[in-house]
Amino acid sequence: MASVKVFGSPASTEVQRVLACLFEKQVEFQLVKMDSFKGPKRLPDWLKMQPGGEALTYQDEKVTLVESRAVCRHVVENFKEKGETELMGKGAMERALVEQWLEAEARKFDPPSSELVFYLAIAPKLPEAEQPEPLLVEKSTKKLEKVLGMYEKRLADKEFLAGNKFTLADLSHLPNTELLMRTELRNLFERHGNVKRWWAEISKRNSWQKVLELASQAPPLA
Amino acid sequence: MASVKVFGSPASTEVQRVLACLFEKQVEFQLVKMDSFKGPKRLPDWLKMQPGGEALTYQDEKVTLVESRAVCRHVVENFKEKGETELMGKGAMERALVEQWLEAEARKFDPPSSELVFYLAIAPKLPEAEQPEPLLVEKSTKKLEKVLGMYEKRLADKEFLAGNKFTLADLSHLPNTELLMRTELRNLFERHGNVKRWWAEISKRNSWQKVLELASQAPPLA
Repeated sequence: MASVKVFGSPASTEVQRVLACLFEKQVEFQLVKMDSFKGPKRLPDWLKMQPGGEALTYQDEKVTLVESRAVCRHVVENFKEKGETELMGKGAMERALVEQWLEAEARKFDPPSSELVFYLAIAPKLPEAEQPEPLLVEKSTKKLEKVLGMYEKRLADKEFLAGNKFTLADLSHLPNTELLMRTELRNLFERHGNVKRWWAEISKRNSWQKVLELASQAPPLA
Repeated sequence: MASVKVFGSPASTEVQRVLACLFEKQVEFQLVKMDSFKGPKRLPDWLKMQPGGEALTYQDEKVTLVESRAVCRHVVENFKEKGETELMGKGAMERALVEQWLEAEARKFDPPSSELVFYLAIAPKLPEAEQPEPLLVEKSTKKLEKVLGMYEKRLADKEFLAGNKFTLADLSHLPNTELLMRTELRNLFERHGNVKRWWAEISKRNSWQKVLELASQAPPLA
């Protein structure tokens, strides 16, 4: 039996980030589906495991974690020899660049893109439609545009964000971008030629296709 | 001459995070002050070094980086034996917990606290006063309150966020918290007894006192 367990719904972007990483590393794991990530269906036991109301819990013999990027770093470190071995680069210099672009994702790309995923991809499907706040959508779109402009320049020189190899820095962008590509914001991504080329490259990876297959079988988040 | 260089103003929270880490690690460095972080005074050379308009550039013999948390991780990794040697914990389990709380800081604490630092501590001092957006201040205050509630529980059991040692996860909170403690939000922090005790502990560290001394000599950001 697999000693790695992931608790959560494969429809959650946090869970998807971790699943993509586990598939890249070819680590065996058990997915314990949990389809509701908030509201009355959440049991006290889950609340203890996910103190900040997180949509994800990861467990192995050593640790229990709830932050998807911390899980990915830990998986790469803990299963060094398995699957793709250079997801955090090779040597101190490459590692530092992966950290830099992983941090750019977490701090610059993720905040606006998560807001936009919520307002444009999730909220419209909720039974009690939550009105998007026009000010927040506009503000987030501007921030996202700025980040994509920065990526566009970086990807003019490099095939991937941290250099010429696919790393966690790229992987971490998969879940939100996938959802935004299904909204009106697809245009924004496609106006940036290098970003478009990069997205085609990273989204066709086997690991991501497996995640999408799992997600397609899951009920939507609500 | 020191091979580590930090470009930026010690009044910037991003720069402060890196300086605190360098002081903890007792790494010799040269601070190249740059007092303006946006606007016409920014030279093309800086723009090349700080492609996303960052307030910070770090350079050593191996890399040039602009994300403060990536710099801190790199400094800990690159100067393993210097100064405080367990800022990322000891062993895989401790390391994973540091990563988790470092990620909580970057993703949950930083976004609302940076907004609030801007609206409550920086904007009121700008010559052309930028009106705080009441909706954004209110939204960010609620988010910050939620995060502090989570920290309050965690710090009931543990002296520091990742366990019973001071780590990068704690250090990373210093710059924004310092500024918020000088605003009306001080009450919000002090209502949480464990958070208050933790703040007293981490803010009295030698490294942080040195950063504050540098910051007090710098002109305010504008």
